[in-house]
Amino acid sequence: MTRPVWWESVVADVDSAARAGVLHTPSGDVETPAFMPVGTQATVKGLVPDLVAATGAKMLLANTYHLALRPGEDVIAELGGLHAVMSWNGPILTDSGGFQVVSLADRVKIDDRAAVFRSHLDGSLLELTPERAMSIQRKLDSDIAMCLDHCPMLPATDSEIARAVDRTIAWAKRCREAGGSDFQGVFGISQGGSNPELRKRCAEELTALDFEGYAVGGVSVGEDRDEVRTAVRLGAASLPADKVRYLMGVGRPEDLIDSVAQGIDIFDCVLPTRNGRNAHCLTSRGVVKLRNACYKVDRGPIEEGCPCLACVRFSRGAIRHFFLAGEMLGPILASLHNLTYIQRLLREMRDAILTGRFARFQAETLEALRPRRLD
Amino acid sequence: MTRPVWWESVVADVDSAARAGVLHTPSGDVETPAFMPVGTQATVKGLVPDLVAATGAKMLLANTYHLALRPGEDVIAELGGLHAVMSWNGPILTDSGGFQVVSLADRVKIDDRAAVFRSHLDGSLLELTPERAMSIQRKLDSDIAMCLDHCPMLPATDSEIARAVDRTIAWAKRCREAGGSDFQGVFGISQGGSNPELRKRCAEELTALDFEGYAVGGVSVGEDRDEVRTAVRLGAASLPADKVRYLMGVGRPEDLIDSVAQGIDIFDCVLPTRNGRNAHCLTSRGVVKLRNACYKVDRGPIEEGCPCLACVRFSRGAIRHFFLAGEMLGPILASLHNLTYIQRLLREMRDAILTGRFARFQAETLEALRPRRLD
Repeated sequence: MTRPVWWESVVADVDSAARAGVLHTPSGDVETPAFMPVGTQATVKGLVPDLVAATGAKMLLANTYHLALRPGEDVIAELGGLHAVMSWNGPILTDSGGFQVVSLADRVKIDDRAAVFRSHLDGSLLELTPERAMSIQRKLDSDIAMCLDHCPMLPATDSEIARAVDRTIAWAKRCREAGGSDFQGVFGISQGGSNPELRKRCAEELTALDFEGYAVGGVSVGEDRDEVRTAVRLGAASLPADKVRYLMGVGRPEDLIDSVAQGIDIFDCVLPTRNGRNAHCLTSRGVVKLRNACYKVDRGPIEEGCPCLACVRFSRGAIRHFFLAGEMLGPILASLHNLTYIQRLLREMRDAILTGRFARFQAETLEALRPRRLD
Repeated sequence: MTRPVWWESVVADVDSAARAGVLHTPSGDVETPAFMPVGTQATVKGLVPDLVAATGAKMLLANTYHLALRPGEDVIAELGGLHAVMSWNGPILTDSGGFQVVSLADRVKIDDRAAVFRSHLDGSLLELTPERAMSIQRKLDSDIAMCLDHCPMLPATDSEIARAVDRTIAWAKRCREAGGSDFQGVFGISQGGSNPELRKRCAEELTALDFEGYAVGGVSVGEDRDEVRTAVRLGAASLPADKVRYLMGVGRPEDLIDSVAQGIDIFDCVLPTRNGRNAHCLTSRGVVKLRNACYKVDRGPIEEGCPCLACVRFSRGAIRHFFLAGEMLGPILASLHNLTYIQRLLREMRDAILTGRFARFQAETLEALRPRRLD
């Protein structure tokens, strides 16, 4: 039994396509816009779940491709499912594995039946079909399962993108047929690059399948910024207004803001944690690169006023030392800060939408993030 | 101004030399017997300080050698001292760096004036004198500073150990002369291997210098178990009964129990965290090696009844997956568990001493830890 309503709009912005809403999942509600930290292998890297929750995150993403390869979906199921393995009671979304097959696996061959590939871990020959993607996700027992789509790496010709759209539609039908678990919502993924006709056709066909939510896929896979923006705009506008819209794999603060303005509701991205592990810290005035010598004896926090553990309890100089000494605490603290920053950004956007200040918030926040010569 | 009393006995066991007491430091009291987790480079590897505190640890150790090399004691001082850098308000003890010079540095030459060596990080030529060891520790601003001693690696001849004892006594005098900070306690370190005469002479000379506490040094540096036990017994018995006794670098549960029985009050060791990072988990029935295939779909905790986050929230199977997937969460959770186990062991020993049950506790706990064929 899927629930009848998975997402409700609370306030729609008058100046843009931005909207504030609530996503309902079997493991609880999530206010949108929302950002999902990525727990690729069933853990947000370096963070015990209480620290993840302390950043303000309500919902996590885990990767079907990685978990199916190791430890395997049957092992996760025997261990009680993803919520138990991750020790996370809140909502969890799993992707379909399709994107990792294209980006990580070796010797990928995709036809209408399946994606056949070699594991990046041990070279074993594997295949992913729409039916298998759904079967894995049922066993993982996530709250939301994603359809298997065909995401072409860009640049690609219109006819290549059109073929990917056709296959994505056909696979979405097979995924809908195969179904998630009784409690799982299933989201469709639209393709079509920055081609308005293809985006429209893909969205219409997916909408006819009445998924619980929809993702804009095929974005940030090799194209330039303008093309990303066009694809997000076309992708969001073509999807139904009464369902949640999810932009996959986008996490730069500027892109989050612009995408919310286009009507995107939820996001996931490794950027906050991956950049954190590289000592790149997100702040409202741009990136602080903690390895820089200028922070050697800096007693100040990563970002003044930030309530995260890293900022309240540690100095830039101390965290820099942890990074230079190769200590795990550096990546841990910087990841914690970055996730806290991103969660705050999303919450501020929601507040701005609710109070009719979104356009101004967008302009001011982007201006503060603009790279400066001095600083 | 050093405080007049650094340690007080509360109850002395009647069946053994074990005692329960309280160590008073500028950053607070510590009930003894006590175990200090090691924060080599100003962080207990992988653990934010709240997680360290959650294990029950009250006092940490940090390594003078490592911190003097990187980031340097002046950087630590400019960042507000070790308590600020580590974000740890409780007591911190620093070692003198002498042991790491002998065990880690390259091309060490030791004479009566100094230990001259090359940094294991960049090969630069450095020297450690008693005066410099104290100066570094003053700048680190720990609660307790250790004298520079000369710790000979075993096996060594009696005359080599005797020379090390002479030098240790001479250096202790120079350390006492140089002094710690106004608030810092300074502990002497006795050498002498398992030779009763040498242990006695070293302890007497150190006692005459009236340190705030005393360590049994030169233990677990290449000798067999029986010799360790002899050295601890001789070392502990020869040191003053009204001062705290610290056994450096010993952390096996069996050795902690036996050493408390010999009158040792405080310990430090990397064993709980290092073993944790290798997926070796300490339990009251011996070591659980989490990488073993038998734990693949094991839903049980590392140790039944353990209140740590790893045991309350994660299964053996899940933590095994984190280790096999190379995720930081594996080492984090296993370190957390191991430190929790060790802190509980020390607290149980104290309770047993206070209630006159120590001999029985020792026998039962050692029996439970004895390796079994089946299990």
